[in-house]
Order: sequence, then C-alpha cells, then structure tokens
Amino acid sequence: MQLLDGRETAEQIRKELAEAVQERKKAGKKIPHLAAILVGNDGGSLTYVGAKVKACDQIGFESTLIRYDDSVPEEILLAKVKSLNEDKSIDGFIVQLPLPAHIDELKITQAIDPKKDVDGFHPVNLGNMVLNLPGFLPATPAGIVELLKRNNIVTEGKKCVIIGRSNIVGTPLSIMLGRNSNPGNCTVTLAHSRTQNLKEICQTADILIAAIGQPDFVTADMVKEGAVIIDVGTTRVEDKSRARGWRLKGDVNFDEVAQKCSFITPVPGGVGPMTIASLMINTLKAMELKGK
Amino acid sequence: MQLLDGRETAEQIRKELAEAVQERKKAGKKIPHLAAILVGNDGGSLTYVGAKVKACDQIGFESTLIRYDDSVPEEILLAKVKSLNEDKSIDGFIVQLPLPAHIDELKITQAIDPKKDVDGFHPVNLGNMVLNLPGFLPATPAGIVELLKRNNIVTEGKKCVIIGRSNIVGTPLSIMLGRNSNPGNCTVTLAHSRTQNLKEICQTADILIAAIGQPDFVTADMVKEGAVIIDVGTTRVEDKSRARGWRLKGDVNFDEVAQKCSFITPVPGGVGPMTIASLMINTLKAMELKGK
Repeated sequence: MQLLDGRETAEQIRKELAEAVQERKKAGKKIPHLAAILVGNDGGSLTYVGAKVKACDQIGFESTLIRYDDSVPEEILLAKVKSLNEDKSIDGFIVQLPLPAHIDELKITQAIDPKKDVDGFHPVNLGNMVLNLPGFLPATPAGIVELLKRNNIVTEGKKCVIIGRSNIVGTPLSIMLGRNSNPGNCTVTLAHSRTQNLKEICQTADILIAAIGQPDFVTADMVKEGAVIIDVGTTRVEDKSRARGWRLKGDVNFDEVAQKCSFITPVPGGVGPMTIASLMINTLKAMELKGK
Repeated sequence: MQLLDGRETAEQIRKELAEAVQERKKAGKKIPHLAAILVGNDGGSLTYVGAKVKACDQIGFESTLIRYDDSVPEEILLAKVKSLNEDKSIDGFIVQLPLPAHIDELKITQAIDPKKDVDGFHPVNLGNMVLNLPGFLPATPAGIVELLKRNNIVTEGKKCVIIGRSNIVGTPLSIMLGRNSNPGNCTVTLAHSRTQNLKEICQTADILIAAIGQPDFVTADMVKEGAVIIDVGTTRVEDKSRARGWRLKGDVNFDEVAQKCSFITPVPGGVGPMTIASLMINTLKAMELKGK
C-alpha cells in the first residue's frame, strides 16, 4: 500500500504556482487576487478559509478576507457579491459554505459571476464541465483528479465507484472521471443512499471514492484487493487525547482498508490540501481566461 | 415482454398539451410558439424537423420553420439566433443538429438564450440539471424519463447501465436518472468506448439503455432476465424491400432481447416520438417559466 499524500502534492503545486507568480511579476503582469467571504464563526469554516488565505500568502497571490456576522441579511451579502463581480482588482472569489439558514445558498452561489467563480459551483461552470468546455472545475473533484494524475494512477478503462452524489463532490466527480479526458475515461458508477447491494458494487471498483461524511463507512470487505481508495470524508469526532478535543475522521476505515488496497488517501492530509490547491489553480486560471 | 410504446405515450402527451392550449386560449393567454432553424437538406434532419412542426400543429402551438442553404455563413446563423432571442413572439427555438462542418455547433448552441433553449443543450440548462434546479432538460433524456414514468416503471434503487456518453443523451441521462428525484434515484453506471468488460456490466442492469448508434449492438447475452430495455439508436440501414430503400435500426437486437426482457422500446416508435413530446413540453414550460 502506498499513501496518496495530498499535502506533498499540494506543496508541489504551490511551488509551481509561486514560480508562475514570479514569472508574472517579471513580465509586469497582474498578480492573482483571491477574495473570500466568511459568514459567522463556524470552526470548520474558519479553518478552511484560514488555510486558503495562508495558501495565497505562500504562493504570492494577493488575498482579501471579508467577514460578516452570523446575522448578516441576505441582501447585504448579495450586494457584496455584486460589488466583487465588478471589482477589477479581484480575479476570483468564494463564499465559504455553509451559510446561516436565513440565507439562500443557491441564490448567493448563482449571483457570482461565472468568470470569477473559482469554486466552480455556478450552473454555467457545471454545464461547461458536462460539455468538456473551458471553465472552472469544482475544487474538490478537480483536486482528486489532479492527485490521481500527479501520482500516475491510470484511470482509462478502470471501473470507478463513487459513494455520495453531492453537488460539490460526488456528482461533478462522476462526470469528470467518466468523460473523455485524461484523467478520465473511467466507467463510473455513482452510488448513494438509495443504492442497493452497495457492498457488491464497491467490490467491483478499481478506484473507490467515498464522499458521504460517515466515519469508517467503507470497510475492508467492501474493497477489491489492490484498489485505489480516495477518502473525501472529514468528520470531526471526539478525541479527548487532543487539546482541542476532536480529530478529523474519513469515510474509510483506514487501518483495515490500507491492508488491502494499492493506494489510499489519509485523512487529514489527502483530499483536503488538494481542494485548496485546486482553488489556487482556478484563481490563476481566472486571470488567464481573461487573457490578463 | 411488454412494449414501451413511445408513439402511444407521446400521443397522450400531445392530447394533454392540446388541452392546455385550449385552456390558455379561453383565458386569453398567449399560445406557445416554437421556431426551428434547419440548415441544408439532410434527410434525417428534414424528417425530424418535419415531425416537430407537425406535432406543433396537432397540439395547436404556433410554429415557424426557418431554412438556410448548406452554405449559410456562420455569422448569418448567429445573427438569426440573436434575433430569435429578442423576438417576443417566439417562446422557444431549436437549431436542428448536425450543422455543416464550417459552422461551430457549440458557438451556435451557446448563443441561444437559455430561457428559450427548449432543446436543453445550453451549459446553463445542463448546469441547472446537475443541481436539480428549474430549467430545460435535454429533450431525449427527458423523453426517456417521461416514458418510464408514464409506464409506471420503478427506478428508485434500480441498477441502470447507460451505454454511450454523448452530450445530448448518455451523459445528461446518467445525471437525471441518478439524482434524487422520481423517476431517478437509480444507481447509474455510464459505459462508453473505453469501458472494459461491458458485457458483464450490462448483465447487472435492471434498466439498460443503449445510445451509441451501432445497430444490433446489444445482444441477448448482455441482458439480465426481466430487465427494462431502452433503445435510443436510430441508424438508417439499407432495406431494398422498402420504396425509400432504408429503415431505422436500433442499438438493440430486438428479436433476441425481446425474449428475455420485461419491457422494451421499439425502433422506430419508442424513444423518437418521446423526444419530440419533450420538446413540446419544454415549449409550454418556456412560457410558464416566464410567468406568461
């Protein structure tokens, strides 16, 4: 078994992006500028946004963090999105999800100019993805595909089973891995809560991807010998041995599955860092798509 | 074995739509108006467009057919698309594909206002489909889903294998049947030219859908006893016994598969009429989405 080390791969990507920034500086070109809107004080969201700002710093991107209180009215947030759409100094921006219940997430997501939608959540970008047209790929699926590519894992003709059909991971990933591209050309099965005989279906997978947020859901008996395992889960579970009182747990029972598979992503340090790396790639792309 | 009679189901839909038109007339509302652009004289395209205009007549929709010679420059076609986008009397329109090689199909498809894109080919409509948001569903996949629904075929939890990943049939259909809706909630596997062990994969399907345009590709040994078979293929093959010299042939070897399955669509008379029915449903929806 070999670890698919997302931290190491993401570090490599950051280095490449930092070089690209230096090249841009030398050529007198604009430096990519990412903005992030964060609403409230959710611990997970704070961590994610913090990691994104830190990645910008490491690469040399400019970044702006805009924070609102939990009680911010939807129209204030919408107005901010519109002003960021028009702000020429900002190349791409994200609104960290989840948002408080009184705010319509879809309304916010759809208000973002698709050309600045570096999270790749806008319908136009999803549609472009379906058609294999230029656009922003959703960050987590794109990070997974990049991780496979940079670790020389062949996908063409392989049977891939994805558990979980969320709009931000499972569904777009099923399209990206199934379409005619490299990585891609997998025979993808998208499994979900209504799937019957899930265990048997998983056993057929050369590449098994779990994205449901249920700790230890995937056990060794569900895994084919030599399969590639991608674990997208990051659930906080209690851990009194740690000062903060919790740790992150994936959807895969790592200890038992690791014995059986060829490659596996750890949690943390697998898909998470790759998601942030994708966002950085998209931010540079946002400038390039504009021809800047 | 029972036939999934697309002609009969489409006829039922046309009747319902004709009633809706009568209701609209009574209420003094606008009658839906579909326009179609046809370039050149391809026999298949002529037949399809003719059938669409005829369906409009039967339902009581207004229709306009705009024809161009094979040699029409791309900019003339683009200008027509733009004028139809702005024409308030037209509720929805289609550009019949394929287009001559000198015209960029994607450019034309993307120029259509998504609100009038009753074929459902625009990236915005595909993205909305991925997110399960309101919009136009691509006509052929939507027709297949409607055919399953009106014939009370349960899809939830069923294993569905789709052969062929085209942008207009296989790929969108895989999303529609896999998402959380009814019909939907299938466990979908999307197979294609790079798929290995296709026969074994097809044998697991409760619902098997062939959309590759290769006559008689699906044979009895690929089909599970009692499966539901949807045949999207419509290839013209030589038939000297007919005055016109050809007949339509599906992707499924009907005679041998029919012995083994529970339901099957004939070719012609299965998916084809449902595609046209979907287009009509979308045309009415185009008005309703505008609140007219």
